[in-house]
Amino acid sequence: MAKDFSTREENYSKWYNDIVQRAELAENSAVRGCMVIKPYGYAIWENMQSALDKMFKDTGHSNAYFPLFIPKSFFSKEADHVEGFAKECAIVTHYRLKNDPDGKGVIVDEDAKLEEELIIRPTSETIIWDTYRNWVQSYRDLPILVNQWANVVRWEMRTRMFLRTAEFLWQEGHTAHATKEEALQETYQMLDVYADFAENFMAIPVLKGIKSENERFAGALETFCIEALMQDGKALQAGTSHFLGQNFAKAFDVKFASKEGKLEYVWATSWGVSTRLVGALIMAHSDDHGLVLPPKLAPIQAVIVPIYKNKEQYDLVCSKARDIKANLEKQGIIVKFDDRDTHKPGWKFNEYEFKGVPVRIAIGPRDVENGTVEIARRDTLTKEVVGVDQVSETVSSLLVDIQQTLFQRALAFRKENTRTADSWEEFKALLDDKGGFIMAHWDGTAETEQKIKEETKATIRCIPLDDVKEAGKCIFTGKPSERRVVFARAY
Amino acid sequence: MAKDFSTREENYSKWYNDIVQRAELAENSAVRGCMVIKPYGYAIWENMQSALDKMFKDTGHSNAYFPLFIPKSFFSKEADHVEGFAKECAIVTHYRLKNDPDGKGVIVDEDAKLEEELIIRPTSETIIWDTYRNWVQSYRDLPILVNQWANVVRWEMRTRMFLRTAEFLWQEGHTAHATKEEALQETYQMLDVYADFAENFMAIPVLKGIKSENERFAGALETFCIEALMQDGKALQAGTSHFLGQNFAKAFDVKFASKEGKLEYVWATSWGVSTRLVGALIMAHSDDHGLVLPPKLAPIQAVIVPIYKNKEQYDLVCSKARDIKANLEKQGIIVKFDDRDTHKPGWKFNEYEFKGVPVRIAIGPRDVENGTVEIARRDTLTKEVVGVDQVSETVSSLLVDIQQTLFQRALAFRKENTRTADSWEEFKALLDDKGGFIMAHWDGTAETEQKIKEETKATIRCIPLDDVKEAGKCIFTGKPSERRVVFARAY
Repeated sequence: MAKDFSTREENYSKWYNDIVQRAELAENSAVRGCMVIKPYGYAIWENMQSALDKMFKDTGHSNAYFPLFIPKSFFSKEADHVEGFAKECAIVTHYRLKNDPDGKGVIVDEDAKLEEELIIRPTSETIIWDTYRNWVQSYRDLPILVNQWANVVRWEMRTRMFLRTAEFLWQEGHTAHATKEEALQETYQMLDVYADFAENFMAIPVLKGIKSENERFAGALETFCIEALMQDGKALQAGTSHFLGQNFAKAFDVKFASKEGKLEYVWATSWGVSTRLVGALIMAHSDDHGLVLPPKLAPIQAVIVPIYKNKEQYDLVCSKARDIKANLEKQGIIVKFDDRDTHKPGWKFNEYEFKGVPVRIAIGPRDVENGTVEIARRDTLTKEVVGVDQVSETVSSLLVDIQQTLFQRALAFRKENTRTADSWEEFKALLDDKGGFIMAHWDGTAETEQKIKEETKATIRCIPLDDVKEAGKCIFTGKPSERRVVFARAY
Repeated sequence: MAKDFSTREENYSKWYNDIVQRAELAENSAVRGCMVIKPYGYAIWENMQSALDKMFKDTGHSNAYFPLFIPKSFFSKEADHVEGFAKECAIVTHYRLKNDPDGKGVIVDEDAKLEEELIIRPTSETIIWDTYRNWVQSYRDLPILVNQWANVVRWEMRTRMFLRTAEFLWQEGHTAHATKEEALQETYQMLDVYADFAENFMAIPVLKGIKSENERFAGALETFCIEALMQDGKALQAGTSHFLGQNFAKAFDVKFASKEGKLEYVWATSWGVSTRLVGALIMAHSDDHGLVLPPKLAPIQAVIVPIYKNKEQYDLVCSKARDIKANLEKQGIIVKFDDRDTHKPGWKFNEYEFKGVPVRIAIGPRDVENGTVEIARRDTLTKEVVGVDQVSETVSSLLVDIQQTLFQRALAFRKENTRTADSWEEFKALLDDKGGFIMAHWDGTAETEQKIKEETKATIRCIPLDDVKEAGKCIFTGKPSERRVVFARAY
């Protein structure tokens, strides 16, 4: 472990930032609240995009692209939406600079003021539903199953790399349906897609649930979410799928002629995940030695480090290493062979360990003699010596095993850190001492949730979809409750 | 041909717009100068992205992401750059809206004015070189080979879908090198990548050349380009690769310690292509029957249309069609089977012809009886009847042939429309009567080029890289010239 690197115990928040920076995932930019996503961090996002994009297309969606700018007036059309989004946003007011008459660079040209200000999209429901109006006349034009990969901007005051940034990258699905049932089915389907992705690619177990009114998307009738638990006991919302009802269709006058010839408003959903998932990935699996990545999303799945003292050894070792690389690549494994002579093997071991490369293969002259290599796995930090002809097989099965192990470990962690609380005192004590998910009764009102939040900073993460009804009393008000909900402090 | 659709002869500009709209590639949005890229148009862009991204990665580049916003002061750091870009741009001045006290929606909150305005990136050299300063200390940190897929905004006054829009999608490569030679080599390499892509994927022959000073990228020492010829005889710049020298390194103070321990400024390149290429693709190949797409970029390579009169025939035909689809997909061909019962076969034929699907397969009950299908190719509009067991083979080879045919056709068109002019009168007559590329002598001065542009709207598209030196006299000034350059009116 690098000396200038924090452990989770010492300072969880600094540990996170250290990983982001030292693993070269991202860095703060010259623009307040905006980050630069560096190549290694961006490669993780590309792998996420590629897996998700395939899942979206397999469920019948196509990609499209809508403008970055949204006319200000569009936000006023859906009352909840403007409350939730239009307030903290980047506003374009002018379209030209001119030379400063004082000769000091450029200044805004006041003659080039826009008649109507443009908002940088914080989310695209308004501009998209304004567009859908022209796409839909009859039931034959439905459903519209569209997704957009884009950048969005929300003027956050307190930002953290990946987790909360003023600009972030995401995908936003926006679908239009003829019936409420079909729209609801789509909402559930995309929630399942997200949960599948989180568990099977990110190796992060998630709870599927419904948001309480306080946490609902501005403009939605119902927000569904997947919630993950981080190693510091805080929750992280990893994806949301919204049932928008006919709110946006009404705001933008999107109607269709039904099979029966009646004019009806269109039903809507929207759903999204963002570069925040990279933050979740880091916090879910990494350890005090740096980043740990699940093989399915790792930009490099296996790295080969040659060990040698002279040119002759270098040639011998590298020739063998290149054979191994070629064999691994035949199996579809993403391999890096690091034969740089500017860095020592020990430095490279640390580097790839810190960057979370799942499997490391070291090969030196003695290995060549013995027909072996040393294989180390990042998740358990264990090593084994295997015969050269078993490398491909070993690495292939290790990658599967590491993916599984990370998921099981995260699942065990979540189980350990999911507790029930039956009284207000117990609730507060658990929150402060242990964190994690707390299953507790709640009277179902927004006021109570708000008061609990003010006193403890904990919010209702979700009302789980697979919950069992259980009579009880609200931990805060003592009023009757029909089910436990999931509380936590959250990112 | 659809009756409400213009031919090239009647109105080239309307023909283009009709194709964009009726083939559902894009449409104008509610935001001035910004378009909505519809799923079918976006799928073409995705295919372009995927091919280019692979070529970039094969030449050692990685993707990254830099902020959408650029602090205004950054533009003033490189004198030519600010002249070229900072003038017509979208400017963010505020970061909050508030409720209108009059109760009419939302207004800009004047208390939330930014200290320094932010420019929506028109191109990212400035923010990226500001970032590179921290990435580079020694020669060991070089080269940096980074590409970004992003949206950019240039406040164009006259816009046309795909060809010139206020917001557009593009990729911008930004590389940093230790030596001038290496940077120049990169500039040439990426020009070759673009030419390869244009010719082998887009099926558009391009001229590789150097831009004259007037047409050079603002901040570059030298701009290289690929130039294509459209069917109306106008040129279209399809990609540029810039040798930036040390301009941005000096503006942003990016130095490195060389192997010899000397502090030196870093050498730079940048290169980009945009969604404008979709416009080029449309104009290069399409005909009076609609869009024509090269198979390598077509979202649907082959469509199967079933022909039937009743349920029995439907079942018979569709069962066969599904077999054919599965066989084609085994060959890696992207197939759509359109079994919708809401539209007649004739309607579907027109639809896919208009959308430029390279190959159409029709199958009816008599075909099933005879063990045949009818295969039509979009480029030549010819049809043939082939045995069911030859479908895969026929379609595979047709796709290769169509790709070739489109390229050869475009190449022949360019040859026919590349002419020499040896006098000013001849030059003007050729421009007005024929258009196309005109090879003519030029005295090498910016003034002359500017005057020619003012009188004829023609510009120097490039000084071809493969030109032969030839003594002559400038068509405008009569001064001596060493080579012919390529003039044209351009998009």
